Amino acid sequence: MNDVVLTGDRPTGPLHLGHYFGSLANRVTLQDKFPMYVLIADYQVITDRDLPGAIQRNITELLLDYLAVGIDPAKVTIFQHSAVPELNQLLLPFLSLVSVSELHRNPTVKDEIAHSSQQAVSGLMFTYPVHQAADILFCKGTLVPVGKDQLPHVEVTRLVARRFNERYGEVFPEPEAMMGERPLLQGLDGGKMSKSRGNAIALSATEDETAALIRKARTDSERLITFDETHRPEVANLLTLAGLCLGRSPQDVAEEIGDGGASALKKLTTEAVNEFLRPIRRRRAEHTEEEVRRILAAGNAAARERAIMTLDEVRAAMGF
Amino acid sequence: MNDVVLTGDRPTGPLHLGHYFGSLANRVTLQDKFPMYVLIADYQVITDRDLPGAIQRNITELLLDYLAVGIDPAKVTIFQHSAVPELNQLLLPFLSLVSVSELHRNPTVKDEIAHSSQQAVSGLMFTYPVHQAADILFCKGTLVPVGKDQLPHVEVTRLVARRFNERYGEVFPEPEAMMGERPLLQGLDGGKMSKSRGNAIALSATEDETAALIRKARTDSERLITFDETHRPEVANLLTLAGLCLGRSPQDVAEEIGDGGASALKKLTTEAVNEFLRPIRRRRAEHTEEEVRRILAAGNAAARERAIMTLDEVRAAMGF
Repeated sequence: MNDVVLTGDRPTGPLHLGHYFGSLANRVTLQDKFPMYVLIADYQVITDRDLPGAIQRNITELLLDYLAVGIDPAKVTIFQHSAVPELNQLLLPFLSLVSVSELHRNPTVKDEIAHSSQQAVSGLMFTYPVHQAADILFCKGTLVPVGKDQLPHVEVTRLVARRFNERYGEVFPEPEAMMGERPLLQGLDGGKMSKSRGNAIALSATEDETAALIRKARTDSERLITFDETHRPEVANLLTLAGLCLGRSPQDVAEEIGDGGASALKKLTTEAVNEFLRPIRRRRAEHTEEEVRRILAAGNAAARERAIMTLDEVRAAMGF
Repeated sequence: MNDVVLTGDRPTGPLHLGHYFGSLANRVTLQDKFPMYVLIADYQVITDRDLPGAIQRNITELLLDYLAVGIDPAKVTIFQHSAVPELNQLLLPFLSLVSVSELHRNPTVKDEIAHSSQQAVSGLMFTYPVHQAADILFCKGTLVPVGKDQLPHVEVTRLVARRFNERYGEVFPEPEAMMGERPLLQGLDGGKMSKSRGNAIALSATEDETAALIRKARTDSERLITFDETHRPEVANLLTLAGLCLGRSPQDVAEEIGDGGASALKKLTTEAVNEFLRPIRRRRAEHTEEEVRRILAAGNAAARERAIMTLDEVRAAMGF
């Protein structure tokens, strides 16, 4: 069987360099090797907050980010979760294959609850791993790029696929989690990189915004710049960022700076990031919102066609 | 706002006289007063058992039963749950409006668990009240005919409608449970009437099958037949059944039999039931499976059109 990659993002705000080095760069490589579906998880936005916010705006920006980094809609199917009812219908048979106690024990659910801003755990959050199974299996996804912390996420999907096949006959592959060699970029304040903390450089940031963010970055007062993740995590983080943008090792960057101190480190990092983002910014500006709408409409239609095929197979296997 | 009736059945086997007097007769009256949707709840079959069984066959028989009792597909939209993905997609926003603890407390879920043949409580069963909300609200149902024991079922739907409207703006009506004046028919063995207990007269039963079932019915040895639900429940049940078929009160039927004993009671009941079922059997035989397929296809298409309209409204209200 041929591999199919499933990946995606929640449309909660602009993508930043953490997303780029953590997953977008990998997608640009993978799109030449495998058929790929990129899911814009709009329903998941109401999993962890009460109101979806400026979701249409966020989706447009997300697509502009994709195009800017080189994700090619001619190779990849980019689609919106809420636009594919046949994908979402898979939730019903899949929910019948997972017990309530399994859902209670699920680490994904525990994780979602921990990161939620909601008062109570909703039925949507509770059933989240099963939604994810539908997201992956609707296109018979076999490879799911994930970070280390997301490994258990794919387990429920494998379980659902296995149980469905056992009960109704072979329909679904058991997808594999695809662990990348991804450097862990921290936010500029040393915390987890996140738009809402103001510690992340968005792919759409201007040169000045980028410079301002790096200027505020936490460092230390030692003149000699060294790459020491344990004792100097903020300095190491800037070196990692600069290194990634320059295609060099952080140690190498540290040596170049020598005893130039934090100001030289920030100057070099700012230039490296801005240099790196220049072609991305240029490509971003080349695309219009009208074009984005066309791409999304075509992706939604293609994803739907795929989902209809799978749902038909599922209904036939179940005897409906 | 104009009323819309939502009702339906699980396609688990042939309908019987309990269904007729409990709900089908009421539908035949309602179909002239309101737009009505009749949902064939095929997914619900996997809520309470592992395998759906001969579901396609059951659905065909169900539709033949509907046509036989006078449900008119020109007035009523009869459709299959699994054929309307846009209805099922409503589950996602609706699940976000109900908390896990509310689902744990729900009497419908407790009831479903009690009647289930499954080993563990599945995610499908656990979220059952929310599925029901989608079933009712997809067509903006306002009237839901229910039995006394089903009153709490409609409560979650009202809650979901209210919370959706509060959060995203007015989209859904809050449906009302519609309690009928329904005589409670017991099975011929005095237990709950149910196909699987062999104590129910199917609408599709032949004259001989009907006679055989009533012959085996439990009664008592008193010669004088009286209508006494407390002390002679089995006799009272046959009197109720005969009375319903004859359009007379059970007391009246008892007086007619007088001291004829159980054999006279059974003879009269058999004739009354067979007389009653005669036109139903005749109409059943007038319809072909081909016709049933056409009716279901048209109903599915109409239900889908309705669901698409509602889902579009939902997506717009949520800002998708």
